[in-house]
Amino acid sequence: MVNLQVMDWQTIQKPTLIVDKNRLLRNVDTMVKKANVSGCRLKPHVKSHQSKEIAEWLKERGITGITVSSVDMAEYFTQNEWSDITIAFPVNIHQITRINELAAKIDLHITVENIETGRFLKKNVKNDLNLWIEIDVGYRRTGIPYQNTQEILDLAREVSKNKKIKLSGILTHAGHTYGRGTRERIIKIYNESVNGMKQARTKLRKAGFKNILISTGDTPSCSVIDKFDDSIDEIRPGNFVFYDLAQVSYGSTTEENIAIGVACPVISKRPERGEFTIYGGGVHLCKDYLTLPDGRKHYGKVALFNEDHTARTGTLTEVYVSHISQEHGKISAPEKMINSLKIGDPVIVIPIHACMTANSHKYYYTYEGEKLESFTLE
Amino acid sequence: MVNLQVMDWQTIQKPTLIVDKNRLLRNVDTMVKKANVSGCRLKPHVKSHQSKEIAEWLKERGITGITVSSVDMAEYFTQNEWSDITIAFPVNIHQITRINELAAKIDLHITVENIETGRFLKKNVKNDLNLWIEIDVGYRRTGIPYQNTQEILDLAREVSKNKKIKLSGILTHAGHTYGRGTRERIIKIYNESVNGMKQARTKLRKAGFKNILISTGDTPSCSVIDKFDDSIDEIRPGNFVFYDLAQVSYGSTTEENIAIGVACPVISKRPERGEFTIYGGGVHLCKDYLTLPDGRKHYGKVALFNEDHTARTGTLTEVYVSHISQEHGKISAPEKMINSLKIGDPVIVIPIHACMTANSHKYYYTYEGEKLESFTLE
Repeated sequence: MVNLQVMDWQTIQKPTLIVDKNRLLRNVDTMVKKANVSGCRLKPHVKSHQSKEIAEWLKERGITGITVSSVDMAEYFTQNEWSDITIAFPVNIHQITRINELAAKIDLHITVENIETGRFLKKNVKNDLNLWIEIDVGYRRTGIPYQNTQEILDLAREVSKNKKIKLSGILTHAGHTYGRGTRERIIKIYNESVNGMKQARTKLRKAGFKNILISTGDTPSCSVIDKFDDSIDEIRPGNFVFYDLAQVSYGSTTEENIAIGVACPVISKRPERGEFTIYGGGVHLCKDYLTLPDGRKHYGKVALFNEDHTARTGTLTEVYVSHISQEHGKISAPEKMINSLKIGDPVIVIPIHACMTANSHKYYYTYEGEKLESFTLE
Repeated sequence: MVNLQVMDWQTIQKPTLIVDKNRLLRNVDTMVKKANVSGCRLKPHVKSHQSKEIAEWLKERGITGITVSSVDMAEYFTQNEWSDITIAFPVNIHQITRINELAAKIDLHITVENIETGRFLKKNVKNDLNLWIEIDVGYRRTGIPYQNTQEILDLAREVSKNKKIKLSGILTHAGHTYGRGTRERIIKIYNESVNGMKQARTKLRKAGFKNILISTGDTPSCSVIDKFDDSIDEIRPGNFVFYDLAQVSYGSTTEENIAIGVACPVISKRPERGEFTIYGGGVHLCKDYLTLPDGRKHYGKVALFNEDHTARTGTLTEVYVSHISQEHGKISAPEKMINSLKIGDPVIVIPIHACMTANSHKYYYTYEGEKLESFTLE
């Protein structure tokens, strides 16, 4: 049931999220192949797109389980025929009723990282579910630092007292791969992460916990590593379906693989000062930024539609989103480029952070006019 | 028809937008009084809240017209019984059909700043509407620079050829008042703006255009100036209903007037390193930031509920949102403060940028449990 719209990209009314289906599927195929070669399971994080249709494309390529970042998102994908879902976000104890309800319906995997929540779950989990202990391998956001043996063992023992809870494994997000750098920097962090996770598993094994799986997988590591360490059972990258300029800056990928953009109409031109303005601001793009070599911040690069509106050009040289307010985006560009644009013409903003940009929209459109839903939080 | 919910703030399930109705109404009353004293009309920008209920509170205080930033928002408020609306955003020519439809229903005011759009409107406006020429008084986003006499006159002459178009006046947004500084800095920019607008009007008058009104009014100027210049006919501040930490940093207001926050549950604690993590990230707060004296960026300050959950405390000393990802917010805080929190307890994040934060949510709740709708873009 493909929902095809006749899109006149040349006369769009407002900022419109475009996904390049060909590039997206190419990104997915690459990751699927890599997981297969490494003998580990790909359980992609769908927070990046939050779309039932894009998830369906993943299913068609053999993906059988997904990762989400909230109970709400888990409920949305449960309604859309997914039956194996990991909520890779520390449990908020006040959502226990909905967690129990989900566990009754699907293979639910939850994430826990502190003994207070562990004690609560021991008492309150009513239906069979899988529990993963979140380990911090150096990102310092959530998770028990892998060195804290006692804390890991205490939590594992506590949750295991409830027979409805299956301790499935340990899970990490090495988010410190996100940062301007090189492939070498990512590989170094990946190796440290693998070592940290192995140490944590060894401690659990020595304490008698069997069949402890290892789940890892941020987009930078998963993009740069060709074959994952044998110890890794599961990877959960999310952003890789789209990629974005931030990922390019980390060394994860190249601009040619970026499968997302926001088409925005030109509303104002000041060629004499090298600036034009689009209808497209913070509520349509996102406020993440990168820094140019000269120290200026920018909020995205710019491409154009090809002649028949079936794809985009490469990003334009010396053209940057230099300032965004709520609905306006100001773009700095060479005078000649600005003179070639007419008021109302669309440009395509290539975002810094695809996940945040996608989250701002209720729908995606493919170049072919397929309309895809994006989950939005109630 | 007040929609009252029983809110158990102590056990909220997810990041929840709270509006402090008392503070908001106090902010509104102050601005209404100031506009009355100055003899100018307050036509508040409702993009900041995008809520029909908050707009209704404004109506109860004598406000008869509002400002919006998109055709979509104009349609939403037209459906909600507003009949005098300014779209303070340069016309996107591809929305002409909906502009004509709106003009048939309400007193519609549109904004134009270039001759290409002017020529298009001359040909395509079918129903009576009011047109404002946007003037740039130094912000350098959109608008014709006030010095560009010929450009202003050409546009005025062009649109006046269509008898359905009434040239109502000139409009500006002195957005360069947004920037870390002092009241003196804001007053200086305000004075320059007034001078620029007067010069532009004088040129129009000399060229034979009569009854040209002046519309201005960013939140910093409107907050700091006690009595507006006689030349100003209309002010359009938006953010003032809520205020936020950015406005405090500009010198517009003090923290006591901030009427908005996001209640977020604690999901992880690391007191030994002075950090805890909340369920509440970039999709619930916003990615705008401020810089502390020591150079660290932060994404918000933190307050607590008072004992009976009817209001918030002041912001806590040395407690900052230090890092946000999509759903997580990491907070740096003194060890003692972290030890006083239990997993699941709510804290209230006071945002850097209220408008962007409000835009991320579909609903507001008052401390009393009144549920307010927030328009979200289709």
